[in-house]
Amino acid sequence: MKLHTYFRSSAAYRVRIALNLKGIDYEAVPVHLIRDGGQHHQPAYLNINPSGMVPTLQDERGTLTQTMAILEYLEETHPTVPLLPVDPLGRARVRELAQIVACDIHPLNNLRVMRYLVDELGISEEAKTTWLKHWIVEGFDSMESHLARHPGTGTFCHGDTPTMADCYLVPQAFNAIRFDIDLSPYANIARIYGNCVGLPAFVKAHPAQQPDAE
Amino acid sequence: MKLHTYFRSSAAYRVRIALNLKGIDYEAVPVHLIRDGGQHHQPAYLNINPSGMVPTLQDERGTLTQTMAILEYLEETHPTVPLLPVDPLGRARVRELAQIVACDIHPLNNLRVMRYLVDELGISEEAKTTWLKHWIVEGFDSMESHLARHPGTGTFCHGDTPTMADCYLVPQAFNAIRFDIDLSPYANIARIYGNCVGLPAFVKAHPAQQPDAE
Repeated sequence: MKLHTYFRSSAAYRVRIALNLKGIDYEAVPVHLIRDGGQHHQPAYLNINPSGMVPTLQDERGTLTQTMAILEYLEETHPTVPLLPVDPLGRARVRELAQIVACDIHPLNNLRVMRYLVDELGISEEAKTTWLKHWIVEGFDSMESHLARHPGTGTFCHGDTPTMADCYLVPQAFNAIRFDIDLSPYANIARIYGNCVGLPAFVKAHPAQQPDAE
Repeated sequence: MKLHTYFRSSAAYRVRIALNLKGIDYEAVPVHLIRDGGQHHQPAYLNINPSGMVPTLQDERGTLTQTMAILEYLEETHPTVPLLPVDPLGRARVRELAQIVACDIHPLNNLRVMRYLVDELGISEEAKTTWLKHWIVEGFDSMESHLARHPGTGTFCHGDTPTMADCYLVPQAFNAIRFDIDLSPYANIARIYGNCVGLPAFVKAHPAQQPDAE
């Protein structure tokens, strides 16, 4: 199995965590998002993934893009270490938490969006940082409310084993810390992040541990 | 089953299509996103969904938010009319197409984001429209490439029966048309939209057909 990845990509980080949790060996193929005008915009990569985004996963069956589609696929094809609970409502809850990150935070803070804000709208560095933090804070407010009020919240987002939701929470919390966001108002997010980040599957997936880390 | 919905919400539109395709009866509970400073920001609604977004689905089991989580839940609890194929790679493809809309287009064109651009960054009406169109065009370029090159594309996004991907494509194409985006460069998107939009499940889900339509 091949994972086209960039060490700092939050989306690739999620998939690396899931692969490690499931104990799936893979070959990391680095795609540099800055170098060469962005290697994800080069024809060789667009031929693999016409969306021009990372990650892309390739196995003997085919080529997959979009992190949630990849994680659901891994769940269906490698079910031994499950990342979703068995009951439909629990599964919905895990997906819901993952999607707060996937749909409500991360798309607004992507490299391409930051570039548009600066290059097309001419916003200042300060306004850019305010934008970045605003959407993380909005999303974390929402995620923390969901976590705080639900009896299913445990050592991890849902219960006492890691799920897909933790694969999303950790890279997003890592980004938040990188942008100096104080996690102390987010008791559950901070606690779960702390419970995850030292586990071998999460350590091995960390941006600093990647072959293309700078 | 109750669906907290707003006629013009693209996310609620997706869930209405899925409910109709599966033949599930539901009660529409309108949540007005403009009136009363946004009914989704009122305590009564936040108590149901602390994220303060539509849609929210409630059934006898519990309360669900985030459209992909809701659609996967409906698929697991009401499998009779499937909206995902049976093979893992086909399922991944349907989810991938859905997520191009869910993650790469729609989050950037949400009401809350448009408001931030105008209120906080002070951008002009013209720059706002350019922003809106830019992300739809980027996302549709990517979606069209995926559709055009894959042998699985049929009458609908994947094969000859509607799937989750069509539940995402139709509301997004409807929005694109509303913002005067020419769909003719998107042969597959335009064709699939045309094949869907007249079907009873899609007609009944259309914003203009909702009890709260204006």
